[in-house]
Amino acid sequence: MPELNPDAELLVGVDLGGTKILAGVFDSKLNLLGTYKMSTKPGRGPDGVIERIARCVEDAVDECDGKLSNVKAIGIGAPGAVDTAKGVVLFAPNLDWHDVPLVDRLHKHLDVPIHLENDCTISMLGVYEVELKGKPKTALGIFVGTGVGGGLVINGEIFRGFTGCAGEVGHMVIDVNGPKCGCGNRGCLEALASRTALFQRVRNAVKEGQSTVLVEMLGKDLADMRSGDLRKAIKKGDKFVERIVDESARYLGVAVGNLANLLGPEVIILGGGVIEALGAEMMHTIEDVAHDYAMAGALEGVSIVASNLADNAGITGGAVLARRKR
Amino acid sequence: MPELNPDAELLVGVDLGGTKILAGVFDSKLNLLGTYKMSTKPGRGPDGVIERIARCVEDAVDECDGKLSNVKAIGIGAPGAVDTAKGVVLFAPNLDWHDVPLVDRLHKHLDVPIHLENDCTISMLGVYEVELKGKPKTALGIFVGTGVGGGLVINGEIFRGFTGCAGEVGHMVIDVNGPKCGCGNRGCLEALASRTALFQRVRNAVKEGQSTVLVEMLGKDLADMRSGDLRKAIKKGDKFVERIVDESARYLGVAVGNLANLLGPEVIILGGGVIEALGAEMMHTIEDVAHDYAMAGALEGVSIVASNLADNAGITGGAVLARRKR
Repeated sequence: MPELNPDAELLVGVDLGGTKILAGVFDSKLNLLGTYKMSTKPGRGPDGVIERIARCVEDAVDECDGKLSNVKAIGIGAPGAVDTAKGVVLFAPNLDWHDVPLVDRLHKHLDVPIHLENDCTISMLGVYEVELKGKPKTALGIFVGTGVGGGLVINGEIFRGFTGCAGEVGHMVIDVNGPKCGCGNRGCLEALASRTALFQRVRNAVKEGQSTVLVEMLGKDLADMRSGDLRKAIKKGDKFVERIVDESARYLGVAVGNLANLLGPEVIILGGGVIEALGAEMMHTIEDVAHDYAMAGALEGVSIVASNLADNAGITGGAVLARRKR
Repeated sequence: MPELNPDAELLVGVDLGGTKILAGVFDSKLNLLGTYKMSTKPGRGPDGVIERIARCVEDAVDECDGKLSNVKAIGIGAPGAVDTAKGVVLFAPNLDWHDVPLVDRLHKHLDVPIHLENDCTISMLGVYEVELKGKPKTALGIFVGTGVGGGLVINGEIFRGFTGCAGEVGHMVIDVNGPKCGCGNRGCLEALASRTALFQRVRNAVKEGQSTVLVEMLGKDLADMRSGDLRKAIKKGDKFVERIVDESARYLGVAVGNLANLLGPEVIILGGGVIEALGAEMMHTIEDVAHDYAMAGALEGVSIVASNLADNAGITGGAVLARRKR
């Protein structure tokens, strides 16, 4: 990472998730100087989590030998519906938060401008501005992690629609008679291709007697399974895990085909933890299936790529937001 | 219809379909003065069809006592992929056309400016400019007829995306294991909710011994079945037809929910022959199911309505295009 000029302006991006908080410190040119990761501990309630966010920011700044007084602004992505103007998290199911005035309360710990955004929107902002250099007029991001989220750029701007919540690709129904989704419906992309869905299929099969090296690796209850474990299992030649991962890739391919037909984006970029861990295993299938499902011309000249920002998309977008609004 | 000033400027919109050609004559304020309908007879080949389009335009102008010399421009919607700049129909499966220079060849019959557009795009243009008065910034049209097509308005403009063919809602996969679609995939909205799909389900059930008043109305082979016959059957208390139509409405509801989640439009407007004939039977179910499938907030303040332009959306859009470009 670049060395820090002790008086340089700093920008901080925070990716607040249900499991972990990731804070990243950037210079004004959006070079990443350092990161710090902390578990979220949502069970401690909003104030407990907010205190941890503040500590995570301080530790990230300290980690790269910076000074908190040089931080010009912070951008935070939260996993749910947000009121960006008021800085309020309206609803975040993974945190069990309702109407939490995150920005106001965080100001008690950190005396800098703080800006809030939805986590997928902020990831798309990071991917679009830093990875795609703001070039394509129309771009779509699909972020595959615990859930599946999306972000949409139209005419060079993050697109929110009339309702303010456009870009929700995770609850596009692809298999109307498919498995139940957390949202209550059936066959949403999230219920078919998220890490949660992937792990559920693995666990169900193992319960029914399926043998897999995952059991040798993690024990019979598959405790602490991570996406990377699936990659390792595939590398060890586990055909069962390969098939389960391929199934998820196929569903993502159908979704990419649908979205190409609907939106005709120039770039479709896939990110999130599952793609970071399993992109090499999944991207070919995603592309092939997308081409099967796209109408004539709907993928002509269109790039379907894995984001190389990986898990840093959220903090990068946070820094972009901080720079815009500092 | 308004009376015609003999020297007034006229605009003509043409809706070229696989079955029929509809031409409409409008004044410069987009009041409809008269229409003429003719069968397409695609079996006669492109030149035969183009000669019929010319005749249909002449007959429509004559029908409302106008003069061809007062026609300032013609806008045509064709059922397939078009090159609007060159006036070429690239591919129209229902007509079996490939690379037909429609505008050039039509000029041999009609010496006025002629503009070509995709049929769903042109219908959306008509609905947006005339029915919605160009007011919503974001709007989505779903046209349910022989197939299912769509049109998208974003920031007040018809949205085509990078690929030029955005707005293709008919091939959004909703039931990945569902019935085969004409496009080769399974479970596209078109394969579930188009008139073709509706009639197929009726015919299959009747073959398997299902009794229905449709057989009394149309004979055992259900010859010349139309969407309106299904409405009549429902009015006669035919529970089987009611269930089949309700199934289609449910699939359309899922699609509307998906699209609200993705695009957050202010208005979602349904049109086409099936909605014209069966809107009263279908719209409530479409709305209810859409609300079941939309995320929190994704339909807040959003109108889901049936177009009252009905079968005239295409010719109205043609006149809008003609007025813009005359």
